[in-house]
Amino acid sequence: MRFIDACNRRPVDKTPVWFMRQAGRSLPEYRRLRESNDILQAIKNPEIAYEITMQPVRRHKVDAAILFSDIIVPLAALDPTMTIVPGKGPVISKPFRSSSDLSRLRQLEPTEDIPYVIETVKELAKSPVPLIGFAGAPFTLASYLIEGGPSRDHRNTKALMAQDPVLFEKLLDILAGITLTFLKTQIDAGAQAIQLFDSWVGTLSEYHYRKHILRTTQAILGAIEVPTIHYSLGTSHLLSAIVETQPSVLSLDWRVPLLRTRSDFGDRFAIQGNLDPTILLAPSQIINKEVNRTLEEAGTAPGYIFNLGHGVLPETDPQVLTNIVEWVHEYGLSGDSLSGDSLSGESSSPVPSGCSDGS
Amino acid sequence: MRFIDACNRRPVDKTPVWFMRQAGRSLPEYRRLRESNDILQAIKNPEIAYEITMQPVRRHKVDAAILFSDIIVPLAALDPTMTIVPGKGPVISKPFRSSSDLSRLRQLEPTEDIPYVIETVKELAKSPVPLIGFAGAPFTLASYLIEGGPSRDHRNTKALMAQDPVLFEKLLDILAGITLTFLKTQIDAGAQAIQLFDSWVGTLSEYHYRKHILRTTQAILGAIEVPTIHYSLGTSHLLSAIVETQPSVLSLDWRVPLLRTRSDFGDRFAIQGNLDPTILLAPSQIINKEVNRTLEEAGTAPGYIFNLGHGVLPETDPQVLTNIVEWVHEYGLSGDSLSGDSLSGESSSPVPSGCSDGS
Repeated sequence: MRFIDACNRRPVDKTPVWFMRQAGRSLPEYRRLRESNDILQAIKNPEIAYEITMQPVRRHKVDAAILFSDIIVPLAALDPTMTIVPGKGPVISKPFRSSSDLSRLRQLEPTEDIPYVIETVKELAKSPVPLIGFAGAPFTLASYLIEGGPSRDHRNTKALMAQDPVLFEKLLDILAGITLTFLKTQIDAGAQAIQLFDSWVGTLSEYHYRKHILRTTQAILGAIEVPTIHYSLGTSHLLSAIVETQPSVLSLDWRVPLLRTRSDFGDRFAIQGNLDPTILLAPSQIINKEVNRTLEEAGTAPGYIFNLGHGVLPETDPQVLTNIVEWVHEYGLSGDSLSGDSLSGESSSPVPSGCSDGS
Repeated sequence: MRFIDACNRRPVDKTPVWFMRQAGRSLPEYRRLRESNDILQAIKNPEIAYEITMQPVRRHKVDAAILFSDIIVPLAALDPTMTIVPGKGPVISKPFRSSSDLSRLRQLEPTEDIPYVIETVKELAKSPVPLIGFAGAPFTLASYLIEGGPSRDHRNTKALMAQDPVLFEKLLDILAGITLTFLKTQIDAGAQAIQLFDSWVGTLSEYHYRKHILRTTQAILGAIEVPTIHYSLGTSHLLSAIVETQPSVLSLDWRVPLLRTRSDFGDRFAIQGNLDPTILLAPSQIINKEVNRTLEEAGTAPGYIFNLGHGVLPETDPQVLTNIVEWVHEYGLSGDSLSGDSLSGESSSPVPSGCSDGS
């Protein structure tokens, strides 16, 4: 399986590719299935969750499926006031702000709290395409609990971390237990790799990341026996600390230069990324150029997985995604033949002219 | 004036210090003045704006005043549907999304559009404390116009940039004209330095920053004859491009290591920053440690201004700010004497124990 081989930095026949949020609102077949189910209902229904997970695999021929779930699923299973508001994200009616709130959390009992996850993963594991399980990392989960809703700067989370480091550490430890159980549950049911979403940790300085976060993330990734992908957003300033968490794969966003990271860390980690998802809304000529630029920066050494730097935006034309998969498979390992002038030629255009405009 | 001297990398008697959003909700005297005025009303009233600007100067003895204004003031003067919603930020009822929206903008006519800014600055210029004028940089203004409200990832702005680079460039050029006029108006009225807030540019890769943004920002800063401060948030990955905008002062957030930046760029730019404002909500012992760590990293070479990495949070105890000013003045140039063990001693505590808890 080329996705797993790439995670392990083994040579592959073609560059593997998948997209964060490939199962989602960019697909009409997804929107149809979601019409009469809110997202948590869909996740809790193994038939629907299976179908949604497989939709992008069938349509785009991506090299990995990612479980249709959400990073707040284990928290929502423990605290029913946590929900996902459409267009807004995770919301909790009473945010976590004091030590008394700790009693609202306990460790996860997978067979009782999330039986639907086990059932969905078991079914998905029968498919020949590798399945990626995932979970939110403790800081990111903590930020949803503490902010109570979406936040641009995670100020309440950082304030609590500064105000009461002891309470914050207790909260992170509880969340680390939940995260690890959630991941192991998926692995036991058949997930062949996992991605840990430490989406919001980029708001911290390296000093505070090392002081409050690194140890916990290290412990989680160190306890996992399948390939692990560490995902974060806006963390170019944390990279030298994040590598100490020792994932199999570092997933980068568009702000971290792929070329330099591959050259600095490519002999220790596979690299995944890093196209800006907003680029997929551009005219085909611009998408082509950016996909080729990404492949060139990635180079041809083993240990690279093509992906975006964040999730597929709902407005994305799904045909653009299908074309990119084809293109990356065809030209991902062809070295520097994609550069510069060849872009106008048909043979180096991942997205045929016009198709990103919905035609 | 030690603030202006530091901007120009000249030796100073004491490390200058001011705080972004020093005039604001952390001060009870500000909250009283704002009780019966929304923020734009307060900005439009020169007496109130003068008073609010001077409040933190009187209370904290900071080394610079910053005009009480908002980066959307020139846009709100041109488009009355742009407002500031308390607790949310700038909102525009009909976001900018197409070329027809360009007609909703025109260049600023200062004496007609913003006479109150001229009047307020003229009064403030009579005070002995240097006055900093400011404006939003074009990308950041564009993001408010295009998103229509607060955004975590500025996706609509980046999508428009990708979809229609020609339209985006036209918009940026118009905004650059507005920004430059807004800054020059403040300088002509007596502002002795300016800060350009390119707050949201950290969402871009270096490639796209260089392609779409750098030239415009360079042109604005190049046309200003007083000391210029470039402010941005989360831009450690853009630093080598941002320095090409040639400000007098680079204002950093807490994610950019002060020590390394001072050593890499300290002979070309003064540096301002970079304490995380959420730290000011912590117990005094932690504030002390972080202030001292910041001063140590900054070192004693000329060209350093103590500040936060983002604005003062409304929940901040104002006495903490007053104490920090005193502390930075007393110990900012004392070299490495602040390190490690001395923190427990009285003489190295910017914030006396307990006072950050409101006591």
